[in-house]
Amino acid sequence: MKNIIEFKKKPTILATFTIGGPKESCGPMGKYIHKKLDCDKFGESSFEKAERKMLTYTVEQLIKHCKFQQEDIDAVISGDLLNQIISASFMARNFDIPYLGVYNACSTMSESLIIGGCLVDAGYYKRVVCATGSHFSTAERQYRFPLEFGSTRPPQSQWTVTGAGGCVISNEFDKDLPKLALACVGKVIDFGVTDANNMGSAMAPAAMDTLFRLFKSTNTTPKDYDLIVTGDLGAFGSRVLKKILLDKGYDISSNHVDCGELIYNIKEDDFQGGSGAGCSAVVFNSYIYQLLKEKKLKKIIFMATGALLSTTSCQQGDSIPGIAHAVVVES
Amino acid sequence: MKNIIEFKKKPTILATFTIGGPKESCGPMGKYIHKKLDCDKFGESSFEKAERKMLTYTVEQLIKHCKFQQEDIDAVISGDLLNQIISASFMARNFDIPYLGVYNACSTMSESLIIGGCLVDAGYYKRVVCATGSHFSTAERQYRFPLEFGSTRPPQSQWTVTGAGGCVISNEFDKDLPKLALACVGKVIDFGVTDANNMGSAMAPAAMDTLFRLFKSTNTTPKDYDLIVTGDLGAFGSRVLKKILLDKGYDISSNHVDCGELIYNIKEDDFQGGSGAGCSAVVFNSYIYQLLKEKKLKKIIFMATGALLSTTSCQQGDSIPGIAHAVVVES
Repeated sequence: MKNIIEFKKKPTILATFTIGGPKESCGPMGKYIHKKLDCDKFGESSFEKAERKMLTYTVEQLIKHCKFQQEDIDAVISGDLLNQIISASFMARNFDIPYLGVYNACSTMSESLIIGGCLVDAGYYKRVVCATGSHFSTAERQYRFPLEFGSTRPPQSQWTVTGAGGCVISNEFDKDLPKLALACVGKVIDFGVTDANNMGSAMAPAAMDTLFRLFKSTNTTPKDYDLIVTGDLGAFGSRVLKKILLDKGYDISSNHVDCGELIYNIKEDDFQGGSGAGCSAVVFNSYIYQLLKEKKLKKIIFMATGALLSTTSCQQGDSIPGIAHAVVVES
Repeated sequence: MKNIIEFKKKPTILATFTIGGPKESCGPMGKYIHKKLDCDKFGESSFEKAERKMLTYTVEQLIKHCKFQQEDIDAVISGDLLNQIISASFMARNFDIPYLGVYNACSTMSESLIIGGCLVDAGYYKRVVCATGSHFSTAERQYRFPLEFGSTRPPQSQWTVTGAGGCVISNEFDKDLPKLALACVGKVIDFGVTDANNMGSAMAPAAMDTLFRLFKSTNTTPKDYDLIVTGDLGAFGSRVLKKILLDKGYDISSNHVDCGELIYNIKEDDFQGGSGAGCSAVVFNSYIYQLLKEKKLKKIIFMATGALLSTTSCQQGDSIPGIAHAVVVES
């Protein structure tokens, strides 16, 4: 089994764009988010339509920012958390561009980067857009309770990010822009966590497995990377990851950050941080990309993490499998 | 924009496996289906668990049939129709193999073949498994009505296939086995159909668009292919496709078949044929693959078709976007 996908030509991340809801825009990532929303309905009649509009706006702005036309993009690779990934599919309806729908829950951003990276690196396509997003209010009412119910959130819970983020992956070489160097596709790992409010714990074993295989296969250690960025393990999940990875011999305590921890001013007694497909998409494509572009980071691991549950699987008594896809990005 | 992905090394479809429910096993495809179920619960406590067991069994048998171990497979690419593609994710939980979750509704089989084909053709991976499935009873109660309700089905409706199918895509050359030659990734096309019981009509425009771009970009005509196999347009949707493609100058009336029409002994006043991610997966990986292997077919287009709706999008008044991904397979 091959653990590592090596991008021989190192496709360039030509541009990124992010959009954040009011809560996200007021947080620590606010100054890096490209478009800040005053209202999380974004002028639409439902939260679901607002979610797809955020994704659509992201793709539009990516094309515009690069001064491209739609025909300059060979494919859009996208997914989201809603049933049947309708946000991504309805976004793609607005463009005359081929579309590949992907879903690995909150790890969809790095999954799309891996597939997009391969398609460009191998020369099948010149440029692809990878984008994903989520919305607190659509996720909350789909996965948990009606919003009007005002349910109490347990201390181990996370807050689904309202936001979207995406990037253009291109075969155009630009020495000043960040590049995809290699990738490690995640396995589905399930340690038997059944608490749908404790997704950090459910995802941490998968995150550990992917990092372990990446370090082992590339003969590297955590010190070889300026930063190891996980998706949305949250404060508690991050602690679990650090502990179980240390048991395997790798110490990431000095250079690990989690997008879920970065995006909000976390009050520990309130919640564990952000989550959702939009969480890693917003933080990676704004703050992390900016640091890479400014060469403040030279080599990082970006690994979005996903909890592969559904309301049906929870109601039928299943535990929550996790997955984590990693990409190594170099500036 | 690049319409065509050309597989330079033409990856081999090393093996296929299919499993069918009782209704499917009694139909015209029965003699080609590898594993026929007597009971659509497959020994499980719920239809959802039966669906994931069919997918798991398919992947297990593919590995076994090729005399491989799990470590000989570099990735599993899979998706299904359930919310959050839980059948695919829980299937992948049973294997120690990296997993990419994909979703384009009933066109997921050809989508997975395209992504898997690229990963193998470009040399990132040696062998991948592409598999998908569906189940009448899980789809019916998720998308439409509780099964106990016994709702009347309108004449334009289709019957979701209970079954799963998959194949091993490999870089091993074998002149006697079918190969992936090229692919055309679909665009999301929406002609405004809002009847969730008439998915053939919703998908036909997307099928037309993909075939049109494939013929145009490869400078071929329908006559250059022994068979043009669509996924689950059904009887009515197939008629719509033939009509609107003829308007564009391409006549596929003499060599078009639809997996949805092939799988059941269709009574036209009853329903329009099969549908679901398992429909094209079962027919392609049993009957069509067999004909290719026997060289009774030399060059075909396999194009699974998908309707990108969800109950939420329907309830919020959205129309049904369609998509169709095509692969050209040569014997």
